[in-house]
Amino acid sequence: MTKPLILVTNDDGIVAPGIRALVEVAMEFGEVVVVAPDAPQSGKGHAITIHDPLRLNKVRVFSGIEAYECSGTPVDCVKLAKHVVLKDRNISLCLSGINHGSNASINIIYSGTLSAAMEASLENIPSIGFSLLDYSFDADFEPTQFWARKIIQYALDHPFPHGNLLNVNIPKLKLEQIKGFRMCRQAEARWIENFVEGRDPSGQPYYWLSGEFINQDLAEDTDVWALEHGYISVVPSMHDLTNYKALEAMQQINDLK
Amino acid sequence: MTKPLILVTNDDGIVAPGIRALVEVAMEFGEVVVVAPDAPQSGKGHAITIHDPLRLNKVRVFSGIEAYECSGTPVDCVKLAKHVVLKDRNISLCLSGINHGSNASINIIYSGTLSAAMEASLENIPSIGFSLLDYSFDADFEPTQFWARKIIQYALDHPFPHGNLLNVNIPKLKLEQIKGFRMCRQAEARWIENFVEGRDPSGQPYYWLSGEFINQDLAEDTDVWALEHGYISVVPSMHDLTNYKALEAMQQINDLK
Repeated sequence: MTKPLILVTNDDGIVAPGIRALVEVAMEFGEVVVVAPDAPQSGKGHAITIHDPLRLNKVRVFSGIEAYECSGTPVDCVKLAKHVVLKDRNISLCLSGINHGSNASINIIYSGTLSAAMEASLENIPSIGFSLLDYSFDADFEPTQFWARKIIQYALDHPFPHGNLLNVNIPKLKLEQIKGFRMCRQAEARWIENFVEGRDPSGQPYYWLSGEFINQDLAEDTDVWALEHGYISVVPSMHDLTNYKALEAMQQINDLK
Repeated sequence: MTKPLILVTNDDGIVAPGIRALVEVAMEFGEVVVVAPDAPQSGKGHAITIHDPLRLNKVRVFSGIEAYECSGTPVDCVKLAKHVVLKDRNISLCLSGINHGSNASINIIYSGTLSAAMEASLENIPSIGFSLLDYSFDADFEPTQFWARKIIQYALDHPFPHGNLLNVNIPKLKLEQIKGFRMCRQAEARWIENFVEGRDPSGQPYYWLSGEFINQDLAEDTDVWALEHGYISVVPSMHDLTNYKALEAMQQINDLK
């Protein structure tokens, strides 16, 4: 049996400690190829680069691992990995992260980490995005690595539903405090923005994004609840944004003349 | 009764003909405020600007209309409109577009136009993204304007479900050829990438994104089907990406130890 081919990417950039921790785990399971941004790309969502050329350079960052830095977004990295770097090869799994900070709930739509995983899922590559609820650069990734091994093994052993990805968030806890995985839905939460207003050195006004995460969803089947109660949240996610309830409720639109 | 306040944005930039066509229609229904990117932002998906300050300048682009150009992404524009420009005011409707080109099916996740509409929907502002299936800068927006009036009136008269937006795509047809609106689900389609490889003037290699849209979904209830058959597709859309079928199917993950 050939070893599985595992693509690793992220949005914090190829030298972030989080991707190094993920590569270390991925290496235990198969052949690893890394294609990741050459600079931080947080908050890039599902952005792609249309109007500019992309750069792709082979780099030595991880010992014994084929790795490329890319000038584009996380989604660009996955597209280049699939269609240029690993052209014609069968990718068994795509792992994205480990993100420095939460991608639970609504954060999934802003997250480059999860958008990369979604792009892989569109190519029918099973994919998992990992995020640790610790924004610090020197976060402790060991508990995440411990549990990542288990879900990577699961993903290699079980076929994923078509177009499915897993959004895995890990609470900032010691290994012995983590209660295990909990399958959840995405909590209904949002950001309340509070722009910081200032003046640049030449006196021109600027606005800098700043906000507070508000969870409006107190149910116990959500990712936010799981994380607050010591679990690792696992939200199976997908790219069909159709609001099926509204589709039924708004049929009147068909009759507008 | 006070006139409704309508926010207009887009991703092709504040001077694109498509947004001008949309502003012309919106003005018939209420007070219009425009906050739109100062340059084209196609393909930016749900990207937000975290690591840089944003610029916001009041500009005279549309006669008699308050308008601002913003240095950020379409989603940044909506956040600035809601929390800075129109702070404390009740926005009745957000209109995004008219996009020069299709945002049907999977294009919704790459589209700045639709991500702007989704961001508004997260703020509980009913929102509609309009896209004309004609990429040319001098496309004929009149048929789109004719039908946009009808769905804008509907949106002002009927409350939207929570967190709902409408993804409206208009076929490139003459007014008399368009059969009307058709409520649909998002077709299961994807892009097959074919990067153009080249060398820049200094001899360095580059990769430029290029691809072909492949519809894998032949059912008659999709947006792609509607557009191919002379209808305007209307897909009610939302931000909950949870794959509920997979959530049931993958409960085994709870037992991983």
